[in-house]
Amino acid sequence: MLHLLHSLRLKARPSFPSSLSPSVIFTRSMASIDLRNALSDNQSALESQANAVRQLKSSAAAKSEIDAAVEALNALKLEKSTIERELHALINADGNGEGSGNKEAFRQAVVNTLERRLFYIPSFKIYRGVAGLYDYGPPGCSVKSNVLSFWRQHFVLEENMLEVDCPCVTPEVVLKASGHVDKFTDLMVKDDKTGTCYRADHLLKDFCNEKLQKDLTISSEKAAELKHLLATLDDLSAEELGAKIKEFGIVAPDTKNPLSDPYPFNLMFQTSIGPSGSSTGYMRPETAQGIFVNFRDLYYYNGSKLPFAAAQIGQAFRNEISPRQGLLRVREFTLAEIEHFVDPEDKSHPKYSEVADLEFFMFPRQEQVSGQSAKRIRLGEAVSKGIVNNETLGYFIGRVYLFLTHLGIDKERLRFRQHLANEMAHYAADCWDAEIESSYGWIECVGIADRSAYDLRAHSEKSGVQLVAQEKFSEPKEVEKLVIAPVKKVLGQAFKGSQKNVVEALEAMKEKEALDMKATLESKGEVEFEVCTLGKTVTITKNMVNIQKEKKKEHQRVFTPSVIEPSFGIGRIIYCLFEHSFYTRPSKAGDEQLNVFRFPPLVAPIKCTVFPLVQNQKFEEVAKLISKSLTAAGISHRIDITGTSIGKRYARTDELGVPFAITVDSTTSVTLRERDSKDQVRVDVEKAASVVREITEGQTTWAHVWSTFPHQSSTATDE
Amino acid sequence: MLHLLHSLRLKARPSFPSSLSPSVIFTRSMASIDLRNALSDNQSALESQANAVRQLKSSAAAKSEIDAAVEALNALKLEKSTIERELHALINADGNGEGSGNKEAFRQAVVNTLERRLFYIPSFKIYRGVAGLYDYGPPGCSVKSNVLSFWRQHFVLEENMLEVDCPCVTPEVVLKASGHVDKFTDLMVKDDKTGTCYRADHLLKDFCNEKLQKDLTISSEKAAELKHLLATLDDLSAEELGAKIKEFGIVAPDTKNPLSDPYPFNLMFQTSIGPSGSSTGYMRPETAQGIFVNFRDLYYYNGSKLPFAAAQIGQAFRNEISPRQGLLRVREFTLAEIEHFVDPEDKSHPKYSEVADLEFFMFPRQEQVSGQSAKRIRLGEAVSKGIVNNETLGYFIGRVYLFLTHLGIDKERLRFRQHLANEMAHYAADCWDAEIESSYGWIECVGIADRSAYDLRAHSEKSGVQLVAQEKFSEPKEVEKLVIAPVKKVLGQAFKGSQKNVVEALEAMKEKEALDMKATLESKGEVEFEVCTLGKTVTITKNMVNIQKEKKKEHQRVFTPSVIEPSFGIGRIIYCLFEHSFYTRPSKAGDEQLNVFRFPPLVAPIKCTVFPLVQNQKFEEVAKLISKSLTAAGISHRIDITGTSIGKRYARTDELGVPFAITVDSTTSVTLRERDSKDQVRVDVEKAASVVREITEGQTTWAHVWSTFPHQSSTATDE
Repeated sequence: MLHLLHSLRLKARPSFPSSLSPSVIFTRSMASIDLRNALSDNQSALESQANAVRQLKSSAAAKSEIDAAVEALNALKLEKSTIERELHALINADGNGEGSGNKEAFRQAVVNTLERRLFYIPSFKIYRGVAGLYDYGPPGCSVKSNVLSFWRQHFVLEENMLEVDCPCVTPEVVLKASGHVDKFTDLMVKDDKTGTCYRADHLLKDFCNEKLQKDLTISSEKAAELKHLLATLDDLSAEELGAKIKEFGIVAPDTKNPLSDPYPFNLMFQTSIGPSGSSTGYMRPETAQGIFVNFRDLYYYNGSKLPFAAAQIGQAFRNEISPRQGLLRVREFTLAEIEHFVDPEDKSHPKYSEVADLEFFMFPRQEQVSGQSAKRIRLGEAVSKGIVNNETLGYFIGRVYLFLTHLGIDKERLRFRQHLANEMAHYAADCWDAEIESSYGWIECVGIADRSAYDLRAHSEKSGVQLVAQEKFSEPKEVEKLVIAPVKKVLGQAFKGSQKNVVEALEAMKEKEALDMKATLESKGEVEFEVCTLGKTVTITKNMVNIQKEKKKEHQRVFTPSVIEPSFGIGRIIYCLFEHSFYTRPSKAGDEQLNVFRFPPLVAPIKCTVFPLVQNQKFEEVAKLISKSLTAAGISHRIDITGTSIGKRYARTDELGVPFAITVDSTTSVTLRERDSKDQVRVDVEKAASVVREITEGQTTWAHVWSTFPHQSSTATDE
Repeated sequence: MLHLLHSLRLKARPSFPSSLSPSVIFTRSMASIDLRNALSDNQSALESQANAVRQLKSSAAAKSEIDAAVEALNALKLEKSTIERELHALINADGNGEGSGNKEAFRQAVVNTLERRLFYIPSFKIYRGVAGLYDYGPPGCSVKSNVLSFWRQHFVLEENMLEVDCPCVTPEVVLKASGHVDKFTDLMVKDDKTGTCYRADHLLKDFCNEKLQKDLTISSEKAAELKHLLATLDDLSAEELGAKIKEFGIVAPDTKNPLSDPYPFNLMFQTSIGPSGSSTGYMRPETAQGIFVNFRDLYYYNGSKLPFAAAQIGQAFRNEISPRQGLLRVREFTLAEIEHFVDPEDKSHPKYSEVADLEFFMFPRQEQVSGQSAKRIRLGEAVSKGIVNNETLGYFIGRVYLFLTHLGIDKERLRFRQHLANEMAHYAADCWDAEIESSYGWIECVGIADRSAYDLRAHSEKSGVQLVAQEKFSEPKEVEKLVIAPVKKVLGQAFKGSQKNVVEALEAMKEKEALDMKATLESKGEVEFEVCTLGKTVTITKNMVNIQKEKKKEHQRVFTPSVIEPSFGIGRIIYCLFEHSFYTRPSKAGDEQLNVFRFPPLVAPIKCTVFPLVQNQKFEEVAKLISKSLTAAGISHRIDITGTSIGKRYARTDELGVPFAITVDSTTSVTLRERDSKDQVRVDVEKAASVVREITEGQTTWAHVWSTFPHQSSTATDE
């Protein structure tokens, strides 16, 4: 059950939050161990040399002798500062890739632009907001809606998935069955005096990071211990975490008061359904459960055939203890989840060949454990070598790769990382995360897990409704079945109140165990048998149980399907997309840096701006005409008839990531400008809207437009 | 503040839930009063005639005399049953239009089809569900997503609205400001013994309806009283409701136990944000507040210009006491809301002329009060006559009409009903509901309200952040302003602890009142002045306050914008659309009724099915080829290669409302069939997908396709 806890916690969050995976930490630490050892050696040498100098001075030794000793001391000091500098550099790289300063400055530039242009707004800002809640403002909302439309096209439509839409309010019984009521928790500590709450692992992590980064005097052994602790933080029990907090003397960061012992805090928002107050409900922590509970109807809707996939897009909620990492760790977010149901005995996929030749960064378990880094692998090879468990899982990994890169995620900063054994639920067959590198490190944005039959079984058990599939045989099959029949009367006389435990233990025997028992009973007449639930061994005699094989005719096979679940954190993907799309370039005058988002037209919040070169009624009329055609074609655009300079207007739209701008500089033809190249072509007024529509809908490309239409030098519409 | 309660409660629910508006009840009751009076007369006559017969018999009168009296008695009995039958018919029409039996049977047929084909699924069905929560299954989800896409195109894109996306979890302060925390309540009564909760108005309504429908002996006065009660149910206070429940002796319907007094139950789902438990939050009851709190940023984003509109689509939540009316009154639903901000001094709309000539059913206040019915009015006339308050409100009424009818809502069963004075909030300038007639009666599906400056003022006040707009004057204007300056020192000496109340009351004076005071002070030296907050009158002397007019130069006008709010209950619109689209027709053999949804292609969950006429590899390959082209064109479709008869396959897709079917009956051309006409044409294999795409996207029509391509008799693909 520890694994269950683990898997639930991981599902929509990075496995090593805001930090690196253990393997990366591991490789980096080799260098830092050398340096720390060198520093420690240098420190000893320094101390003994300083002693030597003092002794020489107090014993009034010869000046030349003292000078030589001081020179040696200075050399050691110089060496010390060199080692320290190197160690500092390494520590800063640790956890941040290439120096945390740059990354943070970059992030600040992106986030400033995003907030200033209302991609995001901290929710309820005029009331000073609520941590972990953000609004999408107009351009952000538009990007989100484009991403979701493309998701529907790429997954739901392309794969004929069954999309459903279930409520967020969920009764307790459903989340009891899924394990969330009992296990969806984070460990929390409270300030003993003020009652302020903290995540226990965060405090421990902060302590370790600070120690590692600022305290150069700690030994390499100590450093290794802290790093190991960081890497295994998610595995610690409440007791272990509490012990570490005590051991390190960690106190409340704000008040320096002592802290309570860690205890679990359930991350679901709780509420009450109906007026009586007796019916507990929760805001769903994921959308998947809505699909599982509908399995029977959906299977029937699909003509009682496997495989099929159901999908859902919707809000999910997590009442984080103390949200960090800005837009990546929020209390309400949009998930898009797919549950692909397959026969556990046949996980092939008919369209697998369409993705098998894709090659991209994968980070298999083996490479992580042995301290290597992610490497380019052909997907087909990963599946055929068994690195990826099965074809269907491989197919979805490939489709997710295509989805993300099509949106504009940088291929070089995208990897598929396999879960380590300790990260995975005990029932899971295999699990891969699509991780995207951002200024916060590698972020889990999509989880792709083969969850076997776990979820359907859990709901079958709790609801009493069988969530199974049937395979009808073309002709009946004769099968041999082992039948274990305890003789209850005899067992009752022998074991009295414990009879039930013994009966259950007998019935639960695996085939081999039962056959062994049968052989022993036949040869010796009795056998020692361990009953776990009694915690002891009992003696079973021949007359207590009948074990034999029987032949039966079966017309169908009834089984619980496996589920392969790609689960998309839409907000995280969008945030990473913002970082990957952002760049700056100097203004024409060279006096300032201008911000640009290089969104592909598919994603861009506004596809096109239209403006008259100068304020002029004729030009304005043409601009309005083009705007009307764009609206009719369903192309989102803005018309800007302010008198601002063209350069400023371009800068304004570049910052919103608008890929095309139409400048009306005549009444017959217009200038069409592409955002990133700043190239311009001349297009007839009547054609302008349709050219933009064709590029936006992917029927043509800018390269083709550039080769077809007359070029326009930038002097006419001076930037 | 009573009005506030009213307005909040009405916002997304019908004003006369599952019943008729007072005016309709009023007109119908005239006829029923006549009948009830006739029945009462008949009853008296019957009784005296029966007495007469008894007397004649006991006095041993002549047989002929007795016979004549009995005959008269029988005639009266016959008359009674005729009146009763008429009254029954009228009562059934009341509240249901044309006999509740038919309506209920129709509804049952629609709902059965919807649930069987998974348009809807009661949520968490395997756990026996939760009242008021429904899932959209695959076809329902697709219809919903089509409706929302069209909403975005028709409103957001067409009007360049600023779309935002705010969280559902909302901190208390926001909903305190909006009035929901204090006033968003329904009155509830509890079973004194079991604690079961009921809506007080529901119990009273049920009692009145039952009395009116089943008890024919009540006097016409009593009937009129009950009907009046039904019509004014929403206006009753807790005390009035409680008194009526006592007066009528209403008890708990399930147990017949006595009931508690009515008390308010807040309809918001409450939760707690963060781990401390001290920060109360609610699941938003509407999406509008997210827009209001962002007004300042959105206004700035729009270049500090009015008018502009913001829009939001999202989930909203109401913890109904006991949900009824199936899919119309649910605990979680999707709202699409627009907040159009305008200068209160200029509510014209630039695109108003585009809708002014639309003509449709409107039901102005005057017609309701005078007992007339809704009538066709040209929108332009309604605005110019002042029936609709202003152009912008009129513009949105027109756009809503176009939106609904484009989706497939029947024009004859759609009306725009103006709110009566008692339904409207005190601050509202005007309010119209788009009501759609369904088997439940007329259902409020869209509310279109001019809410004046109420919401922005409420949040300005609570947050301390000014939510205002500026109009910059081209040149400064000289304005005369009244300045009221209380002399605090003198007031303090005179009124001690009450000084603050007096100062505030003086400062709050309207211009006329202040000028009157100034005149009186100048003539008499003192004046009696009522201070509401003290509940008494005080004497103000000349030295206590300076009142005078000052001239000032102003460079701009600062004002709180008015907001015009069209608010769409998406689930209600979709349900009404289902009812309006549903019909049955006999199968070819005539042995059964087949269900059809006549969705327009825009709305249809699946646009096209593709099936081979017979199971045959060549035909299957063609089918798959066409399917691939449809996917590439983004047209949702299903391919059906089961061997079922074509007739059955058509029936199956008709029931899902699929408008087109492609039957592959050769390898060069195919049969394309339209759902409602059942007409068929032959189309080349290569053209099939693009023809379907063009009709679906509105570039061509079936009529045009029918006139272009060769017709196909239905013998080839026998239904």
